[in-house]
Amino acid sequence: MKERVLTGDRVTGKLHLGHYVGSLKYRVELQDQYETFVLLADVQALTTHFLHPEIIKDNVRNVALDYLAVGIDPEKATIFVQSLIPEIAELTVYYSMFVTVNSLRHNPTIKAESKAGDFDDMYYGFLGYPISQAADITFCKATLIPVGEDQLPHIEQTRKIVRRFNQLYQPVLVEPKPLIGEVPRLIGLDGSHKMSKSLGNAILLDSTKEEVAEKIKKVKTDPARIHKTDPGHPEICPIYAYHQAFRKESSDEIYQSCTKGQIGCMACKQKIAQSINDRLDPMRERRAAYLEHPKRVDEILMAGTENARIMAKETMREVRDAMGMNYFTH
Amino acid sequence: MKERVLTGDRVTGKLHLGHYVGSLKYRVELQDQYETFVLLADVQALTTHFLHPEIIKDNVRNVALDYLAVGIDPEKATIFVQSLIPEIAELTVYYSMFVTVNSLRHNPTIKAESKAGDFDDMYYGFLGYPISQAADITFCKATLIPVGEDQLPHIEQTRKIVRRFNQLYQPVLVEPKPLIGEVPRLIGLDGSHKMSKSLGNAILLDSTKEEVAEKIKKVKTDPARIHKTDPGHPEICPIYAYHQAFRKESSDEIYQSCTKGQIGCMACKQKIAQSINDRLDPMRERRAAYLEHPKRVDEILMAGTENARIMAKETMREVRDAMGMNYFTH
Ligand code: SF4
Ligand code: SF4
Repeated sequence: MKERVLTGDRVTGKLHLGHYVGSLKYRVELQDQYETFVLLADVQALTTHFLHPEIIKDNVRNVALDYLAVGIDPEKATIFVQSLIPEIAELTVYYSMFVTVNSLRHNPTIKAESKAGDFDDMYYGFLGYPISQAADITFCKATLIPVGEDQLPHIEQTRKIVRRFNQLYQPVLVEPKPLIGEVPRLIGLDGSHKMSKSLGNAILLDSTKEEVAEKIKKVKTDPARIHKTDPGHPEICPIYAYHQAFRKESSDEIYQSCTKGQIGCMACKQKIAQSINDRLDPMRERRAAYLEHPKRVDEILMAGTENARIMAKETMREVRDAMGMNYFTH
Repeated sequence: MKERVLTGDRVTGKLHLGHYVGSLKYRVELQDQYETFVLLADVQALTTHFLHPEIIKDNVRNVALDYLAVGIDPEKATIFVQSLIPEIAELTVYYSMFVTVNSLRHNPTIKAESKAGDFDDMYYGFLGYPISQAADITFCKATLIPVGEDQLPHIEQTRKIVRRFNQLYQPVLVEPKPLIGEVPRLIGLDGSHKMSKSLGNAILLDSTKEEVAEKIKKVKTDPARIHKTDPGHPEICPIYAYHQAFRKESSDEIYQSCTKGQIGCMACKQKIAQSINDRLDPMRERRAAYLEHPKRVDEILMAGTENARIMAKETMREVRDAMGMNYFTH
C-alpha cells in the first residue's frame, strides 16, 4: 500500500517564513515521494475565530495561494477545504461517542490551552479538537503525518481512536504513523517570540523585496555591538538565526565574523535580506502567475476538494458498513 | 409562517404503551394541525449504544413500524433517519465552537447522568447531546417541540444556541417554542418503575392479545386484597393507573369498586386487558398491512429522509452564507 501524507493549516492568516522553514519546505519535498493531501482547516479555524469568520473566508484563498507559491503542486498534491467535506463532521460525531472527556483533557494541546486546568470555560468544540483531527486523518486514510517531535501526542490520540473503532466494529480505519521532520518555528523579528502573524513579528511569504529589506533593517541585533569592531553574540540575535535557516552554508562564517567584530550588523543584515529574497523570488513568480488567473486557484481548490470528497464518501460507506448503519444499501 | 413540529425517539428499542400514552397519541393529533417531522435518532442512540450498533440497526425499522402502526401518517408527517442527514453533524460541529463545556454541564439531563458531578468519565458525544438536539431542531427550522413540563430546559438550550448564532452571524435560524403536551411516562408492570423495555416491565405496542392478557394477569396488585371483599388501595396498583390511562371514563367507578371491595382483581384486570387490546387492535391492523409489504416501510423512510435532506441542504446553505463560509458559490 502506497503511503499517503496528510498535512495542512488552520486558515487564520497568511503564511510566513516561520511556516516555510518549519513545515512548507518539507511538504514540498514530500509531495514527490508520497501521495499528499493538504487540508485548509477552516472549520478548525472556527475554534479560535468563530467571532470573525470573515478572517477565515479571506484566508482560505490566501493560504491556498501561499501553498501554490511555495511550490506545492496541484498535480501532485490534493489541496482541499475542510468545511466542504461533511464526512469529516460525521466522523467527528461518530468518534465522539467513544472518546471520554477525560482523555481529551489529558491531550497536551488541550491541557496547555486550559488556563490553570479550568476546562469549564473552554468551548466544547475546542475540547474536541483531537477528535476532529482524527476525523481529518482517517477520512482520507492518511498513513503518514508530518510532525515535530513535540507533536507526537497528537498523532497518538488519533491512533487510539482508530484502534478503538477498529476493535469495536471492523478494521476499516488506518492507523497513521508520525513522520518526524517538521522543525520548531523560527524566531520572530522581535527576537523574543516565535514568528507569528498575530504578534506582528513575521515576514509574510507574499512580502515584496522592499518589505523584506525594511523589516530586516529594523531588527534589534546584539545591543553590545555599537561599533563594527565590538565582539557580538550571534546566539542572541535573530539575524543570526535567519542566517542558520536561509544561508546555512555560510552561517559559521557569520558567527566568526560577528564574535570577532569583523562584520557590521548592517552588512550582515544585507546579506540575509538578499538570501531571503532569493528564496522568495521563485515564490513571487509562481504567485504572480496565479494572480494573473485568479479563477485558477478556485478551480484547484474545487478539484482538490472533489477528489478528497470521493475518498470521504468511500470511507464513510465503510464506516457505516462496519457499524451496521447501512440500512438501505443491502 | 406555518408552525413546524419536530418529534422523535432514539431508536434503542421497540416502543411500548408508555410511549403511546406519553407522546405517540399526542403526535398523531399534532400531524393534523402542523407540518410534522419525526426523527429516528440513530446517531443519538449511539451515545448509550455505541457498543451495540446492531440494536440500533434493528430498531430503526422497528420504531418506524411502531410509528406507522400507531397512526403517524406518512402522507402528513415526514419520518426520517438522523444519520442520513449529514448536515445535522455539520451543524453540531459549527454550534460546538461557541457553546462552553460549562453550559453543557448545567444542562439538567447531562447533570443528572453524571455520577456525583464527575464529568470526566463521560463520553464527549454524550456531553454534547444538547448541541446535537439543537442541530436536530434547527436543520428543519422546527418551531414547536412537544415536551413534558420537565423537559423545558432542553428546549431552552436550543433557544440559546439559536439566539447566539443569529446574533453572531445573521438571523437565519428559527428559535423553537416548547409545546407542552407530552405527559409523564406510564408506570411499569412491576408497579415500581416507569415502563421501560430494558427493565422488562413494558407492554410493547406489537404485543398480541394473548401477550397483553398474560402480562396483565401477572401484575402484582394491592397485597391487602386477598379476598374480593377486602378494601383495596388503587393508588398503589399499576392496574388502576392503566384504567386511568386507557379507560378514563370508568376509572372512578373502578376506584370506588376497589376501595369498597366490590370488584375482584381478576375481573379488574380482564377489563383493562380488554381496553388495552381494543386500543391496540387498529395498530395491529395497520402493522399487519405494512408487514405484508415490508419494502413499503423502507420506501417511506427513504422518501421522508429525502424530504428532510432537501430542507437540511437549504438550511446549511443559509448557515454558510451567514458565516461567510460560502467560498465558491458567489
Ligand atoms: S553581526 Fe549579524 S549576527 Fe552579529 S549581531 Fe549583528 S546582525 Fe546579529
Ligand atoms: S381491584 Fe383493580 S385497582 Fe384494585 S387492587 Fe385489584 S387490580 Fe388493582
